[in-house]
Amino acid sequence: MEQILNYISIGGSFALAISGSLKAMGKKFDPFGILIIAFVTPVGGGTLRDILLTEKSVFWLKETPYIYFIIAGTIMALIFRKRLTYFHNTLMFFDAVGLALYTITGVQIGIDNDLSFINCIILGTLTGAFGGVVRDILVNEVPVIFHKEIYATVSIVGGIFYWALARFNVSNPFLQIAPILFIIAARILITYYKLAFPSIYGKK
Amino acid sequence: MEQILNYISIGGSFALAISGSLKAMGKKFDPFGILIIAFVTPVGGGTLRDILLTEKSVFWLKETPYIYFIIAGTIMALIFRKRLTYFHNTLMFFDAVGLALYTITGVQIGIDNDLSFINCIILGTLTGAFGGVVRDILVNEVPVIFHKEIYATVSIVGGIFYWALARFNVSNPFLQIAPILFIIAARILITYYKLAFPSIYGKK
Amino acid sequence: MEQILNYISIGGSFALAISGSLKAMGKKFDPFGILIIAFVTPVGGGTLRDILLTEKSVFWLKETPYIYFIIAGTIMALIFRKRLTYFHNTLMFFDAVGLALYTITGVQIGIDNDLSFINCIILGTLTGAFGGVVRDILVNEVPVIFHKEIYATVSIVGGIFYWALARFNVSNPFLQIAPILFIIAARILITYYKLAFPSIYGKK
Repeated sequence: MEQILNYISIGGSFALAISGSLKAMGKKFDPFGILIIAFVTPVGGGTLRDILLTEKSVFWLKETPYIYFIIAGTIMALIFRKRLTYFHNTLMFFDAVGLALYTITGVQIGIDNDLSFINCIILGTLTGAFGGVVRDILVNEVPVIFHKEIYATVSIVGGIFYWALARFNVSNPFLQIAPILFIIAARILITYYKLAFPSIYGKK
Repeated sequence: MEQILNYISIGGSFALAISGSLKAMGKKFDPFGILIIAFVTPVGGGTLRDILLTEKSVFWLKETPYIYFIIAGTIMALIFRKRLTYFHNTLMFFDAVGLALYTITGVQIGIDNDLSFINCIILGTLTGAFGGVVRDILVNEVPVIFHKEIYATVSIVGGIFYWALARFNVSNPFLQIAPILFIIAARILITYYKLAFPSIYGKK
Repeated sequence: MEQILNYISIGGSFALAISGSLKAMGKKFDPFGILIIAFVTPVGGGTLRDILLTEKSVFWLKETPYIYFIIAGTIMALIFRKRLTYFHNTLMFFDAVGLALYTITGVQIGIDNDLSFINCIILGTLTGAFGGVVRDILVNEVPVIFHKEIYATVSIVGGIFYWALARFNVSNPFLQIAPILFIIAARILITYYKLAFPSIYGKK
């Protein structure tokens, strides 16, 4: 089970690298800049998490496969850049998968470190959703998850769900599969129906 | 004494969370984005300090009260957002209190780690003044303390004052109270009289 | 040899602090803001490297000379700011020296930590080229090495060169001098002839 999720997680970095590459190409970055944005989109959140914990070196310094999949994703994006719109739905799906897997990984690491409930959720959301924040800072935009999309909220709710199951000793595979499916489904439905919170600022 | 300062410090995070929330609402962030900006404004500086030291995990992963006070401050700001201008002076006061307490905390941590004089002052200024830098990067603005306000300088001078007292074995409560009052007073006077350094760029 | 390189490296921070100061003055920063940009330009990359490794505290918390040379460079830049264009070539030369020395330092630290080939190159490029990225984020610009200059690529190629020599047990002084000279020469030629990669985006 762990093994399978690990493979999916590494595979997810491939899809997120493609989506990061597209963002960087939209900003007319050169190949090096594209590679950096492709890199931080999948692993930026987990990097922040590891830095805050200071338990050990950042994960991708030891788990090299992530890096190779990211480089492969970037090369794919560079080659097929004019035809990537055909894969829009596929990318959206993997983006949701990444959000789900990275969120529960982060919450589990919080549990492993005996952190309080709220800090477990924070680590989950950091891991799941803050790669995009690092990406947006590097391309000099206001991070999109702060003002536009219901993205982090899905990670928070899914993280609470996973934490509660773990707390009540629900065992695998249900422990992991239920919140993963919840996050994927919620994220896809929100994107598909273009759902948004009612604005707190009133109408323009 | 330590205990009292610790309570004030946690309480200060409540006020700084309100001031961060106001900034984020000015940028039309959604509630999640507001919460993040409310979070980094008080604890961003100490987070940078802990990351650079890599002695242990970032402080708020173990000291959860900060997080609850920040969430409370954010909720307050969301509810009373149209009436917060009435509390302008109160917020300004707590901002100065935060600058003072966080600065001497940072300098003391430098002393505890046997760092050189200049690195103690750097840690003090990071802790006291760089929450605002993290906040400004996240809202995609040039950090205000780099070009507009006499803010970091107060932290530097106050930090040197505290370091000198500690060096000459001045004991508590004078050791902590004198630099704290100095920083609070200096910061409030500078804000009140709108003092600024003479520009090094000449007149426009 | 180590000793000599260490002195050059500290000296290089002086020149990079001047170049950072010029950037900050172009943005009308106040003296504190100028000092911060002068600081992150030389040491920002190595700081990121040390944070990701979490082996020990960030290097400049223990190696204070860097800080004094940076402060000296900033004061120089403030005093001679109207005449610094005369030193344009000198600054460019030291920028290339910094890129070279910091790159091989980073690769060597990767080797010392038994990291994989690709992570050694990543640490080298981070150390050599990402001070400029931190600087650009703080002045709220898109990092220049992501879209304009052949800078990081020189660091990558030079880092691979050094890694290969180290791998085949080439000994000093050739081990260090060859890649250092390569990076300096490549960077200077690229700047002088204004070389650029062909754009992947076609003509405007």
